[in-house]
Amino acid sequence: MLWNDQVVERSEVKIDIEDRGYQFGDGLYEALRVYGGKMFMFDEHFARLKRCADEIRLKLPFTKSELKHNLEKLIAAENIDGGEIYFQVSRGTLAPRNHRIPSFEEVKPVLTGNVIPYERPVDKQKNGETACLVEDKRWLHCNIKSLSLLGNVLSLDEALQNGYDDALLVRDGYFTEASASNVWFVIDGSLYTHQDGNLVLPGITKLRLLEIARSEGLTVKEEAVPVSKLEKVDECFVSNSIWEVVPIVSVDGKPINNGKIGKITALLQDKYIEWINK
Amino acid sequence: MLWNDQVVERSEVKIDIEDRGYQFGDGLYEALRVYGGKMFMFDEHFARLKRCADEIRLKLPFTKSELKHNLEKLIAAENIDGGEIYFQVSRGTLAPRNHRIPSFEEVKPVLTGNVIPYERPVDKQKNGETACLVEDKRWLHCNIKSLSLLGNVLSLDEALQNGYDDALLVRDGYFTEASASNVWFVIDGSLYTHQDGNLVLPGITKLRLLEIARSEGLTVKEEAVPVSKLEKVDECFVSNSIWEVVPIVSVDGKPINNGKIGKITALLQDKYIEWINK
Repeated sequence: MLWNDQVVERSEVKIDIEDRGYQFGDGLYEALRVYGGKMFMFDEHFARLKRCADEIRLKLPFTKSELKHNLEKLIAAENIDGGEIYFQVSRGTLAPRNHRIPSFEEVKPVLTGNVIPYERPVDKQKNGETACLVEDKRWLHCNIKSLSLLGNVLSLDEALQNGYDDALLVRDGYFTEASASNVWFVIDGSLYTHQDGNLVLPGITKLRLLEIARSEGLTVKEEAVPVSKLEKVDECFVSNSIWEVVPIVSVDGKPINNGKIGKITALLQDKYIEWINK
Repeated sequence: MLWNDQVVERSEVKIDIEDRGYQFGDGLYEALRVYGGKMFMFDEHFARLKRCADEIRLKLPFTKSELKHNLEKLIAAENIDGGEIYFQVSRGTLAPRNHRIPSFEEVKPVLTGNVIPYERPVDKQKNGETACLVEDKRWLHCNIKSLSLLGNVLSLDEALQNGYDDALLVRDGYFTEASASNVWFVIDGSLYTHQDGNLVLPGITKLRLLEIARSEGLTVKEEAVPVSKLEKVDECFVSNSIWEVVPIVSVDGKPINNGKIGKITALLQDKYIEWINK
């Protein structure tokens, strides 16, 4: 695994009990796919990380090229062809514990990352997942990809406890996201997904799918869909870097598109994979 | 420091990089005061911890008496008379990383805690703090004392960056809390604090202050105060276990009670300390 700028054995890593990542969820993360031994859309993930770091006033302890180099070193060391890289940057340790954000001089952010083999989740992509509606009780900084993830964890848990695969989050009557992915709807031939802003994470896969959809001539509307339109939804799917495109085949037990992957969903899924393979 | 059931040197502690406390802010904490070598209101803090654990489906890896015994061992080992104890319980390590809450069998929660000398912050209690209004952007589970604290951290930071000591959080036009304490107002001789529920943490000090206020014959209203009433506020203070009672002497630069501690604030401050000394 990667610890700051070193590839080390996991057992060698020392995380302090007062690391702010551990006491405050004060840090950021990214997760991205490795295809053929190469990181996919690293530039976009780094740009998001940098933007989030600015928003929480965290000074990244590496440049873009240093991080890229170290992650590539990790992939090579682990001999990964198809995989998933996760890395996080916590703000580091300041004692005694105090809520205030320390100055850049007081604290050294900590990078930890690992890569595991991961294959495309074909079953999920072909057969889809079930979902239920869950109230979006997360904070109003959902555009920050932070370690303070318990809100997402509890959303997913509510769905799992009720026998569904995932949660479609609803805030003030509008769909926002799923528990760890962007959500999309096809209604009357148009493709909808929530506009960027503080209520959703600006997904990297979403970014690419928007481009693909437009280049395929689809009508794309970046706007929130009210729950009241659920009955008019012809297709629904979620997207994230790890799963790519996964159809939602029922919501609260009611089938979407007769419980099958829809045409536009399948098109975007194929085109996205085609684009990866380039 | 305390690591599970052992008092150890800090350097001996091993936190795994995939400890869910570190990757998801998935855990709980408590902070309490030590007066004369004894923990104050341990029973109430434990009851809150247990309730929060139930809410996030975390099975505490100790009984109440085991935890109490171990924390007392820690206080003795560190030879603390007046101090502050912080401890947290993370959900523990499950690899590979996955948002879903693992079953009780899959994971072992991790307790870490430390105690430091701490004296009553007399200056703050006598002279008060300044505050500004900050939008409450935290999640809707504020009654859960979780490690996912970045929302609180950012609220405080907004106040500090603008030159104030603390933030008075406002959601939908109503005061909820300060960045890490309950907030109270005196208006027309009545004492107000936000009712318990998902928008505020049910403070342990708040619990006791409510009792004291009632026994002193004050009119107490557990209800949210709208920001529009700010001009009618005669006194304002915040309370938490560490600081006890601290007056807020100005809000957004406008003095409260001419910038001095108010009569009711001073009364509650004295009575609370009196009660501690019993």
